Amino acid sequence: MERGTCKRIYCNHQKRIEIMEKEFIKLIKTTLNSDYIGDDCAYLKDLGIVISQDSLVENIHFLRNKITPWQLGWKTANVNISDICASGAEPKYMTVALSLPKDITPEFIEEFYNGLKAACQGVEIVGGDITGAEKIFISATVIGKTAGRNISSRSNAQIGQKIVVSGIHGSSAAGLKLLLNNQLDPKKLIKTHLEPVAQREISTLIAKTQTTPYAMMDTSDGLMDALSQIAEGSGVQMYVDFDKIPFDEEIKIFPNWRDLILFGGEDYQLVATVDTPPAGAIVIGEVLAGKGVKLNGKEFSNDLIEQKLYKHL
Amino acid sequence: MERGTCKRIYCNHQKRIEIMEKEFIKLIKTTLNSDYIGDDCAYLKDLGIVISQDSLVENIHFLRNKITPWQLGWKTANVNISDICASGAEPKYMTVALSLPKDITPEFIEEFYNGLKAACQGVEIVGGDITGAEKIFISATVIGKTAGRNISSRSNAQIGQKIVVSGIHGSSAAGLKLLLNNQLDPKKLIKTHLEPVAQREISTLIAKTQTTPYAMMDTSDGLMDALSQIAEGSGVQMYVDFDKIPFDEEIKIFPNWRDLILFGGEDYQLVATVDTPPAGAIVIGEVLAGKGVKLNGKEFSNDLIEQKLYKHL
Repeated sequence: MERGTCKRIYCNHQKRIEIMEKEFIKLIKTTLNSDYIGDDCAYLKDLGIVISQDSLVENIHFLRNKITPWQLGWKTANVNISDICASGAEPKYMTVALSLPKDITPEFIEEFYNGLKAACQGVEIVGGDITGAEKIFISATVIGKTAGRNISSRSNAQIGQKIVVSGIHGSSAAGLKLLLNNQLDPKKLIKTHLEPVAQREISTLIAKTQTTPYAMMDTSDGLMDALSQIAEGSGVQMYVDFDKIPFDEEIKIFPNWRDLILFGGEDYQLVATVDTPPAGAIVIGEVLAGKGVKLNGKEFSNDLIEQKLYKHL
Repeated sequence: MERGTCKRIYCNHQKRIEIMEKEFIKLIKTTLNSDYIGDDCAYLKDLGIVISQDSLVENIHFLRNKITPWQLGWKTANVNISDICASGAEPKYMTVALSLPKDITPEFIEEFYNGLKAACQGVEIVGGDITGAEKIFISATVIGKTAGRNISSRSNAQIGQKIVVSGIHGSSAAGLKLLLNNQLDPKKLIKTHLEPVAQREISTLIAKTQTTPYAMMDTSDGLMDALSQIAEGSGVQMYVDFDKIPFDEEIKIFPNWRDLILFGGEDYQLVATVDTPPAGAIVIGEVLAGKGVKLNGKEFSNDLIEQKLYKHL
């Protein structure tokens, strides 16, 4: 057992986060006698890699009649590559396990893999498994190389660092709302939900230029959730100016658009704490002494953020 | 894309193998424009690792009322570690993605992880994912280190090599039959099915002592299936003497015990073609010029073996 050479992760990337599942994660950590702080990836230093595994389950993460097979392949790749981007490593290899009901057609498989391949761009699909199931179940594992890169940890945030994001928030959750309301416009919001793009470029830039430790996460479970996890992991307060968080004006069609930005999730952007904000990153706040997230002067404890997440989802 | 540095795999490890799924695997290979011959693991030479991902799906690979959570954890670990053993690499790290219905209890999780941990022995569980689902879905990824070891490929069999197995065949399939008939004895057969043991010792011995290329597979999908895959991958004939295949006399309670040995699967033993049979390995035949499997003088084409597998399962 090479304790200390890796970080354990039990992350929960799904729309319907349930208290039971968070409890299960704690229980698993106890059962495994692990006190590592979780990151999006496990960092296996002896191998020079990070590894991450994420699943997409029919009727939990997607509805078969709301996403095309191509989009499902695209999203599977990006969701998993995004975890590697959060570590700062270079996404390199992927395995994909598919469990499929009997009514899945060869066309579905072909389109799924076309979407997967289109999204991979330099990540090689090296294997996997295919089995039967009553519902579609997809689990992908991605390996990233760490050579020449500064690897993040959510426990790395330091007081005085700037908090940066890679792009706009709220569009994916708005797109999901539109889909569930059977609305077709604005198309770009729906597209953000169905065809997310992992932020490889800015991840590489940060990992190659930061000379000091930094925290980084993707915002798959919501921006506030990521901020809260970094605050907890690093024992700091994340001070954020809401007005600096970039978003698409079109989401204002929803009265709760502010909640979509903060708690919506699935934008697959990155949030990081860095000493030197790189070009292209948007500064939204600063790391302070304290705990939790402080948003425009209002303090959000981790518990309050969890409650808001549940309420929103 | 690092074509040539790895082997692609799309293996099918499940009881109810279906023609459609084998067709899907071919389709995936075409879509990915890959002509690599599949192995149980993908060999990523630049990283010095092999990687394998396998899934266990409720009502497909197991019935919740026929296996304890501890056994399910144990089996998950061994099924996945077995793939690494087939490559000859040293099993090292595991990630586990669990998707669970709402009625799963904390006790289930605890016992599952206790079983997983008990089976891991030197393999560190470094992460994974936990989500909701309508049925239990488990997908594990295992990484093995290749340093200092001769790594197998099913395309490596050479004419003149001996065919060896690591142990007895047929017990797991017999155990499954007993379980499905609600019989409780003989207990050791049922145990072989519910608590398989990956053959790490003999895998290590072969990988560390063979100085020439060798083929090796686990017999999760049946001994004949593995023999047939090696024959096809290597362009050779696998000549086997049925009387030399070790089995437990107790399986003779089933009239079709010979079929259980040949086509039963899930024994998680290893079959290899080697120049120098190591201590503990049982020689069951020899690699000849030709194709398919020849059993006591009778030739089995790959198609015939597939038909027999379907008929049996």
